[in-house]
Amino acid sequence: MGEDLADIGEFGVIRRLLERLPASQLIVPPGDDAAVVRTTDETLAAADLLVEGRHFDFAFSSPADVGFKAVTVNVSDIAAMGGRPRYVLVSIGAPTATPVSLLESLYDGIGEAARAYGVAVAGGDTVGADEIIVSVAVLGEPGPGGVVLRSGARAGDLLCVTGELGAAAAGLALLRAESGDPAARALADRFPRLVQAHRRGVARLREGEAAATAGARAMIDVSDGLISDAWHMCERSDVGLILDGHTVPAAAGVADVEEWAGVSGLALSGGDDYELCIAVSPDGVETLTRAVAPTAVTMIGRFVEGSGVELSGAEAPDVAGWDSFR
Amino acid sequence: MGEDLADIGEFGVIRRLLERLPASQLIVPPGDDAAVVRTTDETLAAADLLVEGRHFDFAFSSPADVGFKAVTVNVSDIAAMGGRPRYVLVSIGAPTATPVSLLESLYDGIGEAARAYGVAVAGGDTVGADEIIVSVAVLGEPGPGGVVLRSGARAGDLLCVTGELGAAAAGLALLRAESGDPAARALADRFPRLVQAHRRGVARLREGEAAATAGARAMIDVSDGLISDAWHMCERSDVGLILDGHTVPAAAGVADVEEWAGVSGLALSGGDDYELCIAVSPDGVETLTRAVAPTAVTMIGRFVEGSGVELSGAEAPDVAGWDSFR
Repeated sequence: MGEDLADIGEFGVIRRLLERLPASQLIVPPGDDAAVVRTTDETLAAADLLVEGRHFDFAFSSPADVGFKAVTVNVSDIAAMGGRPRYVLVSIGAPTATPVSLLESLYDGIGEAARAYGVAVAGGDTVGADEIIVSVAVLGEPGPGGVVLRSGARAGDLLCVTGELGAAAAGLALLRAESGDPAARALADRFPRLVQAHRRGVARLREGEAAATAGARAMIDVSDGLISDAWHMCERSDVGLILDGHTVPAAAGVADVEEWAGVSGLALSGGDDYELCIAVSPDGVETLTRAVAPTAVTMIGRFVEGSGVELSGAEAPDVAGWDSFR
Repeated sequence: MGEDLADIGEFGVIRRLLERLPASQLIVPPGDDAAVVRTTDETLAAADLLVEGRHFDFAFSSPADVGFKAVTVNVSDIAAMGGRPRYVLVSIGAPTATPVSLLESLYDGIGEAARAYGVAVAGGDTVGADEIIVSVAVLGEPGPGGVVLRSGARAGDLLCVTGELGAAAAGLALLRAESGDPAARALADRFPRLVQAHRRGVARLREGEAAATAGARAMIDVSDGLISDAWHMCERSDVGLILDGHTVPAAAGVADVEEWAGVSGLALSGGDDYELCIAVSPDGVETLTRAVAPTAVTMIGRFVEGSGVELSGAEAPDVAGWDSFR
């Protein structure tokens, strides 16, 4: 595999990685104690930490996929506020024996995401660790529709979701089984978008901004799983939700994967789809749908007085949403 | 040890940790997809990642010490720009079997640092990992003296350093030997500030801002070790440095520890002191010294045409500066 990190040392690694990023317009670019970036009166800020073997597996994803994903999960948090991401800080942990080429590829994915989402890498850190760790913080600015929180849903509002769900979870299930299971391989060949959704999920940036402008009352991205994330919205908004299970749009092939795997509810519990859950008043649905088009918006539930998520018209999924410690 | 992370789950952990932080004035506090913070036209941004067994060891530091340190290393980067830290994002990785009380103590240290440095915790992430990981990103604003980079030193300028060096490295050496070595224990008792410096180093925030206002031309914090950090300043400024080894101020007890350990140069190569290296024009030294008082400022070198650090009046240290991969 050629050089490892010990061969070129921390500062050699940093130089090699920075070369792979798009040239940026930062006031002070990476390389000083801190970067200096241009900001507006209000800045959106979020952070997500990805750990090898827990959030990604190099058996299923390339290093570039992992770099792309680390930026995507953060950008998705800004999308869910109706905002525009501007900068990311990227801290990497890696064992000393890691090939330099692996980190270079990971940075290629970060650079690809930076171009795709229009963000600049403002800085970060590179350290030793037992496994590969990718820690990203994102800074953004409010979009033209203002900032949309999780807490604005009211009883009587409708819950909508962009696109289709369950694809990333179904893709991961196929990848886990593929090498030893011809049926899994056949499904992966038949529905290539499932594996693609796991490897290269894309944040709904345009849709988030459009939804905010179209009057979305509350928003959250589906990262832990629909039921879990809808539950967060209910809790913050102090309302309950009746979720119409049969209306939840599952991606093509998800039902086939469920049948093959003998599980149910991937669209309800699968994480990493980066679709947006949007609360909207009943008379705002049409405006929202037009604003977010051509991405589909599907009505999947109704907020009510009370608390918690009540699932109707579908069996509860076999698996709960993502919890880092369970 | 009571509950572990699996007992209360990710969202239970997050709730318990957020309770331990000082109440903040954020526009949107932690708990949404992203926080919303107030910012000025220019924002300073930096990130540092600390990994258990590499950057800290719970045999030598309490969880609260580690939390305090994770904020300090970031705040120190802002201090080295002459800036004011405002917000931190804190992402934590931890094994599922970690006692909740350990993370609570770690957050107590983060909260203590937040109060000490006047920053608010704007958000972050909490995930599973093989070891304890503390990833912090810091946002700050330029101080009244403007932003001071690493790159402003010119041939003829003098290099000054705040305070005294080598204390944290000497303290760590004592902690590593202490349990089995009565001489180490005696030194630790005689010079308690050494161990304290390792456990609770404090960023030179006031001094950084004062130096910027007093006309510092370039600045960097001593985090990897004096020679290594001075070398970074030379590289960015495109100058060389003649470092007068015998003028480098070592903390009380550092010479005793060196004698006991049979090593030399802890003040030249030891990391984690968070003192500031400041380049200043010869006629600016007096103003700088007055501005930074009562913290001492010592002249330790002279920038020259050329490149690299030439050490005069002292032996080269046994150990090079910190490199994450060497």
